[in-house]
Amino acid sequence: MPKEIRVGLVGYKFMGKAHSHAYRDVAMFFSSMKAVPVMKAICGRTEDEVAKAAKIYGWQSYETSWEKLIQRDDIDLVDISTPVNLHKDIAIAAAKAGKHILCEKPMAMNLDEAREMLEAAEKAGIKHMIGFNYRRVPAIALARKLIEEGALGRIYHFRATYLQDWIVDPNFPLVWRLRKEFAGSGALGDLGAHIIDLARFLVGEFERVTCATKTFIKERPEASYVTGLTARAGGKMGEVTVDDAAIAIAEFKNGALGSFEVTRLAPGRKNCQRIEINGSKGSIFFDLERLNELQFFSREDKDYEQGFRTILVTEESHPYLKAWWPSGHIIGWEHAMVHQIHDLLEDIAEDRMPTPNFVDGLKCQEVLEAMDRSSREGRWVRI
Amino acid sequence: MPKEIRVGLVGYKFMGKAHSHAYRDVAMFFSSMKAVPVMKAICGRTEDEVAKAAKIYGWQSYETSWEKLIQRDDIDLVDISTPVNLHKDIAIAAAKAGKHILCEKPMAMNLDEAREMLEAAEKAGIKHMIGFNYRRVPAIALARKLIEEGALGRIYHFRATYLQDWIVDPNFPLVWRLRKEFAGSGALGDLGAHIIDLARFLVGEFERVTCATKTFIKERPEASYVTGLTARAGGKMGEVTVDDAAIAIAEFKNGALGSFEVTRLAPGRKNCQRIEINGSKGSIFFDLERLNELQFFSREDKDYEQGFRTILVTEESHPYLKAWWPSGHIIGWEHAMVHQIHDLLEDIAEDRMPTPNFVDGLKCQEVLEAMDRSSREGRWVRI
Amino acid sequence: MPKEIRVGLVGYKFMGKAHSHAYRDVAMFFSSMKAVPVMKAICGRTEDEVAKAAKIYGWQSYETSWEKLIQRDDIDLVDISTPVNLHKDIAIAAAKAGKHILCEKPMAMNLDEAREMLEAAEKAGIKHMIGFNYRRVPAIALARKLIEEGALGRIYHFRATYLQDWIVDPNFPLVWRLRKEFAGSGALGDLGAHIIDLARFLVGEFERVTCATKTFIKERPEASYVTGLTARAGGKMGEVTVDDAAIAIAEFKNGALGSFEVTRLAPGRKNCQRIEINGSKGSIFFDLERLNELQFFSREDKDYEQGFRTILVTEESHPYLKAWWPSGHIIGWEHAMVHQIHDLLEDIAEDRMPTPNFVDGLKCQEVLEAMDRSSREGRWVRI
Amino acid sequence: MPKEIRVGLVGYKFMGKAHSHAYRDVAMFFSSMKAVPVMKAICGRTEDEVAKAAKIYGWQSYETSWEKLIQRDDIDLVDISTPVNLHKDIAIAAAKAGKHILCEKPMAMNLDEAREMLEAAEKAGIKHMIGFNYRRVPAIALARKLIEEGALGRIYHFRATYLQDWIVDPNFPLVWRLRKEFAGSGALGDLGAHIIDLARFLVGEFERVTCATKTFIKERPEASYVTGLTARAGGKMGEVTVDDAAIAIAEFKNGALGSFEVTRLAPGRKNCQRIEINGSKGSIFFDLERLNELQFFSREDKDYEQGFRTILVTEESHPYLKAWWPSGHIIGWEHAMVHQIHDLLEDIAEDRMPTPNFVDGLKCQEVLEAMDRSSREGRWVRI
Repeated sequence: MPKEIRVGLVGYKFMGKAHSHAYRDVAMFFSSMKAVPVMKAICGRTEDEVAKAAKIYGWQSYETSWEKLIQRDDIDLVDISTPVNLHKDIAIAAAKAGKHILCEKPMAMNLDEAREMLEAAEKAGIKHMIGFNYRRVPAIALARKLIEEGALGRIYHFRATYLQDWIVDPNFPLVWRLRKEFAGSGALGDLGAHIIDLARFLVGEFERVTCATKTFIKERPEASYVTGLTARAGGKMGEVTVDDAAIAIAEFKNGALGSFEVTRLAPGRKNCQRIEINGSKGSIFFDLERLNELQFFSREDKDYEQGFRTILVTEESHPYLKAWWPSGHIIGWEHAMVHQIHDLLEDIAEDRMPTPNFVDGLKCQEVLEAMDRSSREGRWVRI
Repeated sequence: MPKEIRVGLVGYKFMGKAHSHAYRDVAMFFSSMKAVPVMKAICGRTEDEVAKAAKIYGWQSYETSWEKLIQRDDIDLVDISTPVNLHKDIAIAAAKAGKHILCEKPMAMNLDEAREMLEAAEKAGIKHMIGFNYRRVPAIALARKLIEEGALGRIYHFRATYLQDWIVDPNFPLVWRLRKEFAGSGALGDLGAHIIDLARFLVGEFERVTCATKTFIKERPEASYVTGLTARAGGKMGEVTVDDAAIAIAEFKNGALGSFEVTRLAPGRKNCQRIEINGSKGSIFFDLERLNELQFFSREDKDYEQGFRTILVTEESHPYLKAWWPSGHIIGWEHAMVHQIHDLLEDIAEDRMPTPNFVDGLKCQEVLEAMDRSSREGRWVRI
Repeated sequence: MPKEIRVGLVGYKFMGKAHSHAYRDVAMFFSSMKAVPVMKAICGRTEDEVAKAAKIYGWQSYETSWEKLIQRDDIDLVDISTPVNLHKDIAIAAAKAGKHILCEKPMAMNLDEAREMLEAAEKAGIKHMIGFNYRRVPAIALARKLIEEGALGRIYHFRATYLQDWIVDPNFPLVWRLRKEFAGSGALGDLGAHIIDLARFLVGEFERVTCATKTFIKERPEASYVTGLTARAGGKMGEVTVDDAAIAIAEFKNGALGSFEVTRLAPGRKNCQRIEINGSKGSIFFDLERLNELQFFSREDKDYEQGFRTILVTEESHPYLKAWWPSGHIIGWEHAMVHQIHDLLEDIAEDRMPTPNFVDGLKCQEVLEAMDRSSREGRWVRI
Repeated sequence: MPKEIRVGLVGYKFMGKAHSHAYRDVAMFFSSMKAVPVMKAICGRTEDEVAKAAKIYGWQSYETSWEKLIQRDDIDLVDISTPVNLHKDIAIAAAKAGKHILCEKPMAMNLDEAREMLEAAEKAGIKHMIGFNYRRVPAIALARKLIEEGALGRIYHFRATYLQDWIVDPNFPLVWRLRKEFAGSGALGDLGAHIIDLARFLVGEFERVTCATKTFIKERPEASYVTGLTARAGGKMGEVTVDDAAIAIAEFKNGALGSFEVTRLAPGRKNCQRIEINGSKGSIFFDLERLNELQFFSREDKDYEQGFRTILVTEESHPYLKAWWPSGHIIGWEHAMVHQIHDLLEDIAEDRMPTPNFVDGLKCQEVLEAMDRSSREGRWVRI
């Protein structure tokens, strides 16, 4: 019989919904798990909304205070899917209460917070994970496998963009993600955190960075409420206190060069996370908008047959795919969330530390902080 | 309060699983439905397997006899996800028992069966639907909308292929889909049915067809059991009694020309359902392996700006997408199944006949039968 | 010292220009040819236009009568780049005069003409070639090489479309290509001839065909003159006497299935010649609008690395490419014409019969005729 | 009658050949030019090679001393297609001799040289052009047109890479392009110059830059001769004295952000110059390996029809295309060279200063120099 892991989730918007779905479906597709989730309670401030979410998503109960959720005896794992400004307090309290933690990215508002969180978690001896879900997109997991097998040889280049366009309209309102006090940073933290983590996952540790950030649209209509992406515009204008875009150059400890660019102002680029890695023996390319595909070029193919091959990552021989549909039946964005929950539960059952965990969250935060400082001080910053 | 529709599902393999998932998740994403499913019972011949499926998929109970399932008072809707050879008997019995029906495609082993089924359903006055799920891929629904708006003008060409490669290995065993007594036909019925239905959905009724079919690999190792895609090879060879591939030319009643090609022997084509339509004002192109995209060319764009635009069909303004994730977060193959269940339940709640229904299933069967006859007799066949 | 081949060209419009360019440039890029062209004379009916063409294209002289051109002693090779209705007379006269012949495709107005032409050429013992230029697109030549090496294994499917849209506007005038008396047929002969020849080049001989043709737009404004693509519309309407589109199914002698579709009414498809071949070991895909690329899928790649590779056919290891630019610098449409002239001249110098020659032209004509008959009689026609 | 411009070309390798081809063919395709080239003389150090080049390319005579070429009375235009280290001396001498100049890019070994060249040219009152040929790729010219029309609105982002892989093999020899004394710099000057110029062409002037450069492979086999890409490896190892790769961030005077990356170590990227521009109203994307295509996204399209459209830039309504083949017949890399020569000759005929000219060359050099300094000093450098 699989072990039961009782989950309490804080947050019920975009991330809360995606996590709920993963808990709900994981055991249907991964049918021989060592641990299965029990959806004990979901938590949010607004009672009628969280009550509705509990019902729709399938949670057994709800809470309106995260402090109360954490104190419940029937919770083993606390899932933190709130805006960034709440991560630290919830995580430290959960750790103190001996709960395992899954925390959304970016880990914290700043490096100091991240350090406190890691310290608390380590002291408590709990399992912890950061929600860098893209590590579990099958194509990315396959890329990692190819790199580990040496298919790319020595890595020369890591090149990533994460482009979106959801605030290109100057009348898009001042939601929480555009305010420093809630979000910590803008595109840099939100989008940059993902590609920094993937760089660490696929290439290795950073040595130094230089970075420029920019806020192109400095004022926006104040939102009638600040949570949620879909807030309606009010009459007054407010200041945008985070970056719209950031570009960084990095050097990795292994000598590779990295380039990073994130923006929320690229019309037509909806979720355009693209990653290319060039090594001495080959290259890979990934695009999140076509997340079921991985492009791979090998210099070891016969000379006149060489070309980027588009691997449709839907075969049983591909990571995670055995759980899903027959060959050629593509999966969606949220499936990587299911994989994340799967791996987390297995790790807890097996008493292993998950990855990426708070150490990874912290190291990502170090890079983000270095980029931010570099952009303010106009110089290279060592990690 | 939404109405509850109590569902009994026959079949628990590929289709049974996909349907189960749809019932399980539909109300989580479409949050204001007029009817919600209750997963009453799942049915299959092998008790331990169906029991396990019931548990994993979330069904309240299971049956090992479909006859018994159909007699249960607590079932409103019977979902037929079995091999084709069982469709007729189950459907007719379910109709007689007054149950609504969702039946997988192709509808029947032949046209006579389909006629019997439709007759029974009409006599019983039940709601019926055929599982042509691809009508509910958002990009296809968008294509239909564009056509209805006149964006393509007068239709000249419908061009579809549905290519797979899962039996390209001559040692792939003789599973039920390769035996006429279980499957009725091969690629023609399995893959052809989908693109014939989409042709009817997007262009209109068929006038006449000519067709060639072919079985390239005439013998295969007998499977130790005949259900399931993953059967292991045994020692003896058996005859493949269905087609590996089929090509057809069609004329539509509105004068358009159609071309159709299906095969299971196209290496690298995993689920390559591609549809192109050319009209007097523009064209559209769709590829199921990139199901979140629709290509659209309009002659009404400024002359030097004309080009096929790749619409990433993940916006709130696109069909069904409001239920899912933010812009740019792609959905997977099984989501169209969720849309299908959503629309079916809404139709039942609103006392509307769903589409595609048994009439559509029958008309598709007429075209399949005409193609089959054409291929045997070497001549054009009128529908 | 390379041999000099003295050329006389009949026709100075699209094909005449493309051939002129090839003669002009071939020896600049293929620098160690055994024979080089001397551009002796160009021929056309309208003196001031042909005189201007002679000057611009670099011909030493011009003629206004093809009969006179053929009688000139200083001509070794006659290049027939006229509308189809003139091919036969010129070719037979040229053969009788002992000139080598390059004749544009399709070879003739009908099969009888083609037979006469071949007979005359064989009797005269001259070298003859048909201008199926696409055999010499490097990506197609590479496809042939892969097939000959067995990279695709046994061929199951040949699938080709050739889609254009240049007459989609109903006001496009009735140019010579839309009149049976000048062009012989419409899309079938013009576009179909190319893909039929490529099918023979890549797969082998045809066994039988069935075909449908269609003229969607039956009347068009009469052109003020009938040669040239760019004729202006006059006031009166005239009947379109050739097909706008054709679809055919074929069986090859080796058992493969073929599908063919051509049209001039596919908005956005400008020169969309696409070819896919599926065999037991792999597949290839080609698109003339991206003629520098060949897609190749091999089942012999490691299972989790399989995918269509996009070979950028610009390497020295690729056919013809050594003559051109460094890796990655793409070539254009007209370069295949240069390759054609190169190979023709080398063959003449080496006293070899070129390919494709009048035998290939005739065999293509047999298939075209069978398709035409099939479309008129509504039945399969054996080649 | 068109004016005749008598040309003397220095250099006969890659660039010399490409320029020769352009002079040879330009008047064949642009048939009503106000000035036509006369290919007077080609110049190179090695007599037998330059003599052969003269013959093959179609030059009337040759010289082995550029000084002598420049003194010839029958030369109006000097074309400098040599390694960079010779640009300055030839250009200044040519200017003093009153010849117009076309000089390959990058303009000079350093900024001082570029200044001297410009000064000499301005003093002499000659016409001068720098060979940034990619401005004349039709898709790029179309991009410029769209931007000038305001189709992108306010520009936020310019993003360019120029990736190649021709030295990824560590045994590739130490050719002149890898030695600072001949080439000035590596990927930065060779590839970077192109995308810097395109940034200026499409977005505007640079404000400041920060940059990192890297030489991954520090030693290579010495080449038996140092000119030419295809030199054979000798036994001894020599030091690579230029960069293999460079990444830069830029801010433009108009507030836009720019990112630039060049490398010669990206397996599979053969000539991968990609440019994306994001503005408030739309985006464009270009890839030199598919140079006949321009992708364009417009926020002004109907919301559910928005998508990147792939414009096949082969229509008469597109820049330069009227001179070439019918719609859909793609052109190659060298055609932009033909356009460059066309525009240069027209400018000379009309007594207009060409663009890009030495001022543009100088401004590009300023940016290159700033990037180089930034990379050495580890800080932002103002232009």
